[in-house]
Amino acid sequence: MWTFDNFPLETVNEAYGLTLDQAWLDHIQAASVRLSSGCSAGVVSSDGLLLTNHHCVIECAQELSSAEKDFVAQGFLTAKREEELVCPGMAAAILTDISDVTRDVVAATQGLTGDNFVHAQNARATGIEQAACGDDPKRHCQVVPLYQGGQYKLYQYRKYSDVRLVFAPEFSMAFFGGDPDNFNFPRYALDVGFLRLYDDGNPAATPDHLEWTTRQPEAGEPIFAAGSPGKTERFLTVSQLETQRDVYLPLQMAMKAELRGRLIGLSERGPEYKRVATDWLFSVENGFKSGVGQALALRRPPLFDAKRAEEKRLRKSLKGDLKREIGDPWADIAAAQAEYRRLFLPWYFLEQAPHHSSLFFYARYLVRAAEEREKPSAERLPEFADSRLPWMRDKILAPYKVEKALDELLLGFTLSKSREYLGVDAPETRLLLGKASPEILAHYLVDNSQLGDVAVRRTLWEGGLAAIEASDDPMIQYAMHLDAEARARRAEWEDKVVAPTRIAHEKIARVRFHVYGGTMAPDATFTPRLSYGRVEGWRYNGTDIQPFTYMKGLYERATGQAPFQLSPRFTAAQAVADGGIVYNFTTTNDIAGGSSGSPAIDADGRLIGTVFDSNIHGLGGAYSYNAELNRTVVVSTAAISEVLETVYGVTTLTDELSASAN
Amino acid sequence: MWTFDNFPLETVNEAYGLTLDQAWLDHIQAASVRLSSGCSAGVVSSDGLLLTNHHCVIECAQELSSAEKDFVAQGFLTAKREEELVCPGMAAAILTDISDVTRDVVAATQGLTGDNFVHAQNARATGIEQAACGDDPKRHCQVVPLYQGGQYKLYQYRKYSDVRLVFAPEFSMAFFGGDPDNFNFPRYALDVGFLRLYDDGNPAATPDHLEWTTRQPEAGEPIFAAGSPGKTERFLTVSQLETQRDVYLPLQMAMKAELRGRLIGLSERGPEYKRVATDWLFSVENGFKSGVGQALALRRPPLFDAKRAEEKRLRKSLKGDLKREIGDPWADIAAAQAEYRRLFLPWYFLEQAPHHSSLFFYARYLVRAAEEREKPSAERLPEFADSRLPWMRDKILAPYKVEKALDELLLGFTLSKSREYLGVDAPETRLLLGKASPEILAHYLVDNSQLGDVAVRRTLWEGGLAAIEASDDPMIQYAMHLDAEARARRAEWEDKVVAPTRIAHEKIARVRFHVYGGTMAPDATFTPRLSYGRVEGWRYNGTDIQPFTYMKGLYERATGQAPFQLSPRFTAAQAVADGGIVYNFTTTNDIAGGSSGSPAIDADGRLIGTVFDSNIHGLGGAYSYNAELNRTVVVSTAAISEVLETVYGVTTLTDELSASAN
Repeated sequence: MWTFDNFPLETVNEAYGLTLDQAWLDHIQAASVRLSSGCSAGVVSSDGLLLTNHHCVIECAQELSSAEKDFVAQGFLTAKREEELVCPGMAAAILTDISDVTRDVVAATQGLTGDNFVHAQNARATGIEQAACGDDPKRHCQVVPLYQGGQYKLYQYRKYSDVRLVFAPEFSMAFFGGDPDNFNFPRYALDVGFLRLYDDGNPAATPDHLEWTTRQPEAGEPIFAAGSPGKTERFLTVSQLETQRDVYLPLQMAMKAELRGRLIGLSERGPEYKRVATDWLFSVENGFKSGVGQALALRRPPLFDAKRAEEKRLRKSLKGDLKREIGDPWADIAAAQAEYRRLFLPWYFLEQAPHHSSLFFYARYLVRAAEEREKPSAERLPEFADSRLPWMRDKILAPYKVEKALDELLLGFTLSKSREYLGVDAPETRLLLGKASPEILAHYLVDNSQLGDVAVRRTLWEGGLAAIEASDDPMIQYAMHLDAEARARRAEWEDKVVAPTRIAHEKIARVRFHVYGGTMAPDATFTPRLSYGRVEGWRYNGTDIQPFTYMKGLYERATGQAPFQLSPRFTAAQAVADGGIVYNFTTTNDIAGGSSGSPAIDADGRLIGTVFDSNIHGLGGAYSYNAELNRTVVVSTAAISEVLETVYGVTTLTDELSASAN
Repeated sequence: MWTFDNFPLETVNEAYGLTLDQAWLDHIQAASVRLSSGCSAGVVSSDGLLLTNHHCVIECAQELSSAEKDFVAQGFLTAKREEELVCPGMAAAILTDISDVTRDVVAATQGLTGDNFVHAQNARATGIEQAACGDDPKRHCQVVPLYQGGQYKLYQYRKYSDVRLVFAPEFSMAFFGGDPDNFNFPRYALDVGFLRLYDDGNPAATPDHLEWTTRQPEAGEPIFAAGSPGKTERFLTVSQLETQRDVYLPLQMAMKAELRGRLIGLSERGPEYKRVATDWLFSVENGFKSGVGQALALRRPPLFDAKRAEEKRLRKSLKGDLKREIGDPWADIAAAQAEYRRLFLPWYFLEQAPHHSSLFFYARYLVRAAEEREKPSAERLPEFADSRLPWMRDKILAPYKVEKALDELLLGFTLSKSREYLGVDAPETRLLLGKASPEILAHYLVDNSQLGDVAVRRTLWEGGLAAIEASDDPMIQYAMHLDAEARARRAEWEDKVVAPTRIAHEKIARVRFHVYGGTMAPDATFTPRLSYGRVEGWRYNGTDIQPFTYMKGLYERATGQAPFQLSPRFTAAQAVADGGIVYNFTTTNDIAGGSSGSPAIDADGRLIGTVFDSNIHGLGGAYSYNAELNRTVVVSTAAISEVLETVYGVTTLTDELSASAN
């Protein structure tokens, strides 16, 4: 997962017998898109058409749906551009420039520790962003820490705030095989969605787009995946990995497993409840299974053995002045882990978990935005700094629908887990609940809040602190009731955990650079990366897994019962569909959550698929990449063209793609 | 948790300045009861009256309830003996004799390995049982392996098959504080239930009963807990503990967490669903929290450090002939762990998990009983041997009610987890599901099965193999469809995991006896034990937790919202109840799941409370007892007398108890 300014062109050309150059790299960068839904996409026409995954547009399809029209269940097809619908709150960004601001950022925190360190760093980063992008709504600037603070880079993007849904297949086909097949292979998912960038109300002009191919992928051929992988933690120290394994993951897994059960319970109350719960259930099941894969990886002794050995090697490399200057950052991080274990639950349940409820999320950020905007940008919580405020405003003022039954479940659930993990008598529990039960409090707050109405949110946003203080919305009042304590827990967390960890990581990054030079890719940071690999299966427990599935296999796997149920359109097309087309395939590319929707590009720079998943071993990629086992799963463009034509008959889309295939 | 035949009387007398003797011990043994609900109880009158916990009678109260009469929610009160109702399927047993059969059992397996070892051992054990108890329905015999096979003892019991419910408080009071307060302290739970043993239709004569006291417990005073703790694993080897931590517990925790969410979802469909789900939800939440405590214990490095050190010490003690003879049983167990990891999931999901469904449980055991009864006793699966068949028959022919909505949820859930963990393409999944979805299959089987009718079960039981083979009940047919494969997975599991583990543990037990002599208590085996301790609080994270809560604290803790909601009776009695009465208290006694309902006895042999819980640290007692932190939680008899009188006004009961207090 290399950054575009440090891609090892020479190594790749040598290994694969290619002659890729900077122009090739620039072209791919310009055709790679980051979506605010936490996904990636590729530009596939000169009119702003994007190919991504269905699970990257499902939230949009769900938002556009109603009890009468369910675009998730039935799919979303357009015959002409006027039918394309704005995805509420969705934005897209294309990277235009990377520059190094390490010296500037590091200078701002020289000699500082704790809270002061965090504040100074945030202030400098947001200041750099604001200086570079100003208030231009078509640009987005972000200071990105790479190598855990070994480098700071300013990433500049062209930003699109009007992204529309063009095509989504039925959820049953996009997620064919459902949770049971998720992260497994052989796989038969049409995890595909098309979006379009709009600019001033018209389709955006995107001269840099990827050429479409209907060629079948071949075993062994080189594949490049260009996307924005969200988060890996390969540079965590051993003590941090232990915290992940023993504290963070067990809590997350237990909460996700129960929430999954609750959401299934909600779904069973009736079809409209089922519709409303669909994308949350998908996301929780997906997150749970990711956690299973990560926990599995962390339980394998070789992983820790290798991490321990590397830590030893880095420590041993320290000599003389450097050693005196650096000290023992691993020990500093271990000390911060003790604080992590002490402070995690109160911080998590006051500052993070309640955000599961959309209404509470709105209330908290309306309250805080009003308070923070009274201060100079550099003194605010960083998410409210001038450079980041537009993102926050867009998120709060996007016309999202709030489904009250779902929101009540989510709020009640997090409140009840707060009580369970903090204990009935903890001061934080008393603050959260008073004498109320989680369920009754959640019902009261959700039922009586008006924040589901975007006009109410707009009035409160624009009215500032006076409007907030005058509001009688119970969710606003509840957010205010929690705020001082939640901020205090956050400040303590940043002071005692975040700051010492960042300071120590900067030092460890210096040691790494000293030992390895620039020959390593930084951990994923939800910024554009390029990974190289090959079409390849794998071998596990003595069994060879082939890298391809074919369209005929989809029909063979269908049982008539969810999640192996074909949509009526697919059933109807069985006789005409080409069973020999490669449907899904696997590659050795290194990816991570956030890479979903990454264009899979062949050696000629042509689009041959859209990355949508990894195998179960790939989930351990959070902590280290294992070339033997980690695989990326891709929907082939050949299959996409075939189904658009024979199953969906959406000729405008196939025409546009053919044009781009010249 | 000492066995009654090896209680360290002298040590205790010395430590506590007492003069306890064999007669005292015999009296307590004769007044200690094991309940088939997996609990303990104490005899408290000469007419067979038993004191146990509410959570030991909740299943009975639930069975006796209906949509019209909810004895769980409203409590169960009797004014005279005719109102006492038979608990379906419940049996009770009082230990009468222990004898050593080690030589006999060990001789039967000499030189055997694998499957042969397991079969020979089972055949010998059930043979000894049958020889000792014959077909006497009032006696129960069981060969118990102690010290993981270091000893085998024949336990003989007086058995009571007619156990009736006398008193149960409202669930809201028994489980006041609900899951949030469970395993926590301060605690205010009236976790109390009264049962009565009947013999030939009349209250059983029980001359050996515990004297009742309304004296308040005092800090520091000695307390003896007499009960049948279910299962501890303190003698597991390091490699076994790792399997617990990395394989068994993570699966159990994830499944319980999701099932909890599903059961809450079921409850929310309406009041009758809520009623039906109550005891399952309680049991799943309780089991989940136990798992949390166990997982916490297994994640603490000192536990593994101590286990590793002990293993090293035992290994080092081996010298000369003994060493040659014993070999390396720890390595044998480690090798069996690799097999455990390979075989666990298919075994668990075919042979264990489907039993969550009552209807499937009936079907499986009806099918197997029919098949097994065709064979000589020694060749059967051990649960169908002559000595154990009555237990099985009683369980299947007890007039349990099957709630179809609940049973469908449980079967659908386990089938869907089977698919999730085994994988869609696993042969076991194909066998379990065919082309059906778990939900649709579960609905079909539960909806169409007649096994909820005890008369149907009786006909099938009595009709034997011919009736089973002729049955068109879909659940019977489904159980037959799975049976060969499930038996094969079980045989493989016993051959590759159980047998080598038992053989190695027998050897390790010899090493332990060699090093420690008889100065250790065996792991809990759901057989009667006596533990000694004191009334004592504890200190954690710099805070002292006092050992007592008082009745006034109950009223202070009430919020009016579940699970802190007083029943109308308690609300009404607030003015007259004595707030100064000790309600719950903690002791240092070593207990385990199954000890619930154990009489807590003072140095004079008088009953001063009923054990109902441990603190959260006590859950780690599964792997080792920590005297600083592990505490047992008890409801005081003083509080029980107080509420029977002032809250419930059940004078027949208080009269009977007063008589026993002489």
